[in-house]
Amino acid sequence: MALNEAARTHPSPISDPTSAEMHWSRWGDPAHAGPLADSAFALVDTFIGTSETPAVPSAEVRLSAPLADGLLAELAGIVGAEHVLTDHDSRLQRTRGKSTPDLLKLRAGDGTDSPDAVVRPGTHDEVVALIDWAVARHVAVVPFGGGTSVVGGLVARREGYAGVISLDLRRFDKLLEVDRTSMTVVLEPGLRGPAAEALLAAEGLTLGHFPQSFQYASIGGFAVTRSSGQSSAGYGRFDALVVGLKVATPQGTLELGNSPANAAGPDLRELVMGSEGAFGVVTAVRLRVRPLPQVTTYEAWRWASFADGAAAMRTLAQAGMLPTVLRLSDENETAINLAKPAEVGESGGDAGGCLMITGYEGTPEAVEAKRTAVTALLAGLGGDNQGADSGQAWADGRFHGPYLRDSLLDVGVLVETMETVTFWSNLDHVYTAVKDALVAALGEATLVLCHISHVYETGASLYFTVATKASAEPLPQWAVAKKAASDAMVHNGASITHHHAVGQDHKPWLAEEIGPVGVEMLRAVKERIDPTGVLNPGVLIP
Amino acid sequence: MALNEAARTHPSPISDPTSAEMHWSRWGDPAHAGPLADSAFALVDTFIGTSETPAVPSAEVRLSAPLADGLLAELAGIVGAEHVLTDHDSRLQRTRGKSTPDLLKLRAGDGTDSPDAVVRPGTHDEVVALIDWAVARHVAVVPFGGGTSVVGGLVARREGYAGVISLDLRRFDKLLEVDRTSMTVVLEPGLRGPAAEALLAAEGLTLGHFPQSFQYASIGGFAVTRSSGQSSAGYGRFDALVVGLKVATPQGTLELGNSPANAAGPDLRELVMGSEGAFGVVTAVRLRVRPLPQVTTYEAWRWASFADGAAAMRTLAQAGMLPTVLRLSDENETAINLAKPAEVGESGGDAGGCLMITGYEGTPEAVEAKRTAVTALLAGLGGDNQGADSGQAWADGRFHGPYLRDSLLDVGVLVETMETVTFWSNLDHVYTAVKDALVAALGEATLVLCHISHVYETGASLYFTVATKASAEPLPQWAVAKKAASDAMVHNGASITHHHAVGQDHKPWLAEEIGPVGVEMLRAVKERIDPTGVLNPGVLIP
Repeated sequence: MALNEAARTHPSPISDPTSAEMHWSRWGDPAHAGPLADSAFALVDTFIGTSETPAVPSAEVRLSAPLADGLLAELAGIVGAEHVLTDHDSRLQRTRGKSTPDLLKLRAGDGTDSPDAVVRPGTHDEVVALIDWAVARHVAVVPFGGGTSVVGGLVARREGYAGVISLDLRRFDKLLEVDRTSMTVVLEPGLRGPAAEALLAAEGLTLGHFPQSFQYASIGGFAVTRSSGQSSAGYGRFDALVVGLKVATPQGTLELGNSPANAAGPDLRELVMGSEGAFGVVTAVRLRVRPLPQVTTYEAWRWASFADGAAAMRTLAQAGMLPTVLRLSDENETAINLAKPAEVGESGGDAGGCLMITGYEGTPEAVEAKRTAVTALLAGLGGDNQGADSGQAWADGRFHGPYLRDSLLDVGVLVETMETVTFWSNLDHVYTAVKDALVAALGEATLVLCHISHVYETGASLYFTVATKASAEPLPQWAVAKKAASDAMVHNGASITHHHAVGQDHKPWLAEEIGPVGVEMLRAVKERIDPTGVLNPGVLIP
Repeated sequence: MALNEAARTHPSPISDPTSAEMHWSRWGDPAHAGPLADSAFALVDTFIGTSETPAVPSAEVRLSAPLADGLLAELAGIVGAEHVLTDHDSRLQRTRGKSTPDLLKLRAGDGTDSPDAVVRPGTHDEVVALIDWAVARHVAVVPFGGGTSVVGGLVARREGYAGVISLDLRRFDKLLEVDRTSMTVVLEPGLRGPAAEALLAAEGLTLGHFPQSFQYASIGGFAVTRSSGQSSAGYGRFDALVVGLKVATPQGTLELGNSPANAAGPDLRELVMGSEGAFGVVTAVRLRVRPLPQVTTYEAWRWASFADGAAAMRTLAQAGMLPTVLRLSDENETAINLAKPAEVGESGGDAGGCLMITGYEGTPEAVEAKRTAVTALLAGLGGDNQGADSGQAWADGRFHGPYLRDSLLDVGVLVETMETVTFWSNLDHVYTAVKDALVAALGEATLVLCHISHVYETGASLYFTVATKASAEPLPQWAVAKKAASDAMVHNGASITHHHAVGQDHKPWLAEEIGPVGVEMLRAVKERIDPTGVLNPGVLIP
C-alpha cells in the first residue's frame, strides 16, 4: 500500500514490540484503528466517491462449530488445557488472513473458515505430537504465525476432515543461539518482527527484514512464504537470510543447513521455503544477521518518468551499487502520496514525475561512501535530489498503509494490492498489461498505483495498489479483477508473486508458472511427506 | 590441486577454446600430458618416494559389451546413425569421470563402467525422444557434458538394465539468446567453459565462472553439480548465476525461471540444480552475465598463520568488501607452492606463513576503489603485501594442477582432492579433524595441503589435496582415507561437498547430511519424475 501521506495520522507501530492480537477484521493493533483523516476523506470522496460501509459487530460473525469435546481433551493431553482455545474471539482472530477478500468476508459476518480450535504448543516435540495426532484423527492443521497472509494461506480445505485446528506458534518466541563468528542466530518461528528485532538489537544485531507486515508477521511465516522486506536491496530477501531450518513433519523431523552453501544435491531448504506449512511446521530458523546499523538515512529523488527512474535502478543494481532501500513510485502513486486536497486541480510547480526513495544503513563511513557514489550516479542519470526530509517522510509512514485500507473499506472503497516480478526487459510490458487489465475489469474510475521496491541485477518487482468504488457485491467484483491481473502477469512471462506467496488464491497461476512437471514435483513431495494430507490442505499444492 | 609452481611447465589451457577430447586416463588435453618437471620430481622423490607406475595401453582397457544391434538401430532412428558411436575410443573417453579412483581403474585396464553406446542428440526434442526410448527399453541414460565428475557422477548402476548409454550433449553448443537489458543469456548445456566464454566475449560479456575444471566442464554440468569457480567471491557460485532451466524428463519438459526471484512456492530450480541428471536432462540454461572486465589484476599477501588469514577473509566477507578472487593456502600448501628443491632443508628467510591471493576484475575505477579498500583493510589486519607478481603466478598456473596429478600417478604417488564447507565458527575444527583423519588413515608420510577458496558472510569452503605413496592396492588404500575424511566432515557438522557434488561417491554422507526425511523428499521426486529409474541410476539418490 502506498498512501503514506494520508495515513500519517496514525502513530508508528514499529516502536511497539509487544503488540496485541490483531483486530479481528482489520489490519494491525485495534488501538490504532480509526477513520480516514479529513484531508484523505475529501480526496477520496472527490475522486472515487464514498458510502459508509461498516463491519458487523464481532459477536455476530458466524464461525465453524468448535472441535468435538473428545478431540479437545486429547489436544489438552498434548499441550495442556490452557493452550487449547475454542472461545469465539480466539478463533475469530485466527480466521483467514488479511487480504481484502478475507476482510470483506469477516466484515459481512462470514467467519465460516474459522479454526475449530486453537492449539498453542510450546516445544518441537509437542508440534511433532500434534502432527501425529492430526494424522491419527484426520484433522487439518493450519500453522499460524502472524496471521498476515494475503493469499489465503490460512484457509484450509475442510471437506473430508474431522476438523481444522490453528496451530499457533506464538509460544515459540525465543532467540536460541547467537554465533557472532559466523554472524548467524537461531530464532523461533513465532517471534513477530518487532520482538525478533528487539532480541537481536540487545545483541547489537539485526535481520534487516522490514516488510510492510513487519509489525505482526512472524519469523516462521517469513521463511515459508519467501517474504521480502523494504530493505531487501541491502539485506536481501528473507530466503537469502535463511541458512538452516528445523521442521516437524508427519515423517519425523527434518533438519537442514550445515553451511552457507554447498553442492550436496538439490537444496532442500529451498523446498521448505515457500511451502506454507504444506510439508511441515518450521520450529526453528537459523538466520544470517548483520550488525545493527550505526547510521540510517533516507533521501528522495524525483525522476521525469517511471521509465527513467526504473532505468536508474537497473543501472545501480547492475553496477553493484545498491543502497539499503531503493524504491520508485510511478506517476500515479507519486501524485497520490504528495497530494494535498486543497491543491487538487492546481498545476503545482513540483507536481508530476516519479518519486524514488534511497535509504542507507551501516557504519558512518560505509553509508557516506555508498551515498556519495549512488548520489553521483543518480544525478548523472538525471535524477533530482529532493533531500532527506522527503525520504524520512516515507520512512515514517511506511507501516501505515494497511491501516488506511481499513479506513477506506469503511467508506465503501475497495482497496487491494498485488505484486509480481520479471526481468528488466519485460518490466514495462508487464506494468502496462497489469494496469490495463485492472482498469478493464474495474472500470475507468479505478485508481491503479504502482511501485518498484525490490531490484535485482536481472529484474525487479512491481507492486500495485488498486482502489475503486466497491459494488454491492465486492467479492465477485474483486475476483474478476484479480483474475484479469493475474492472467496479465503470468501470460506475459512474469511470476504470479514476488513476495506474497501462493496460498489458496494463487494456485491456478502457480500451476501455469511451473507447468505440469513442476506440479508433479510438488505433489510428489507433498504425498510422500504428508500422505494423509493433514498439513494446511488446499494451500500451495495445485 | 595446489601444486602450481611445479606444474608451470605446461602451457596454459585457457587459451584453447576448441579443446580436444580429454585423454582417456588423464586430465585434460592429451597434447599437454607429460612427466613431472625435473625439479618437482626431485622434491617428490625426496619426501614421498617414487616408483614408475605406467598406465596400460588404451587398447587393452576392458570395456562393457556394446549395445545390441537392434537397440543401436533404434537409436540411429532417433538421432541419425552418425551420432551413435560404439567404437572403443569413443566409449573409453566417456567411461567414468576424473577422480583419482576413476583414473586408477582405467590405468589398470578396468573400463567395465563404460557406456554401451554413445548417443549425441542435437535438439531438445531428440533428448525427449531418447528418454522416452530409454524408458520403453529400460536402458540407463548417463548425461555427459564435460566428463569431469570427480564423485562418480558418470557411473550408472548397470544391474537390471538392458544397457547403459552415454547421452553426450556436445552438439548443444550454441548461445541462444542475449538479453542486454536484463543481463541474461541462454546457453546450451554442452558448451564447455572456454567455448562459452568465447561466445560471450564476442558480446562483451562473461559468466565469470572459472572452476579448475573450466577447460573441459560444461554449462549443463556446472548447473546440475552446483559448481563454484575461482572467482566466486566476485561473480557468485554457478547456482547463483542460473535464472532459468529447460529440462527434458520422462514426464515431459520442465521450464523454470521467469524472474530473478519470487515467492511462487518452493524454488524448483533449486531441485534441478544439484540433481546430476537424476531428474532429467538440462537442454538450456538462462544465466546472469556481467560485462567483460576491462581490468584484471591479482596480488599476493602473506599471513603469519592460516587462522590469521582466514580471520581476514571473514572480515572482508562480513564487511561486504570481497575482491573477485580470494583464496588462502595453509602453511603446507604455501610451502609446497613456493618450494624450490635446491632450498629444501634450509630455513629460507621468506619461508613460513600462508599465502593469500586477491584478484580484482571490472572497470579501472571499480577495481582501483575495491583494491584500495581491501588493501587498507588487509594491511591493517597484519597482512604482508607480496605484490602483483606472486598473484599473477597463481593465475598463470591455476588450471595446471590436474595435469600434475597424472604425472604423480605415473611415479606411484597417490594424489586426490576433497572439499567441504561449514560456518566460520566451525572452520578450524573441521580443518583439523579432516587433516587428522587423513594422516591417521594414510600414515605419517602423507602430505595434506589445504586452501580456502570460497567465502561467504557465514562460512567458507576447505579444499584439501592429499599426496602419499601409493600402496600395491591404491583403490582400497584411498577408500579408507576417503571414508575417514568424509566422516570427519559430516560428523563435525560440515557438508560432504562444497562444489564437487554427490554422484555415487558421496551418497552415504548425503543421506546423513539431509536425514531420513530429506532422503524421502529426494526419492519422492525421483520416483514421480523417473518412475522406471532410467536417469543416471545409482547417482545422487540415497
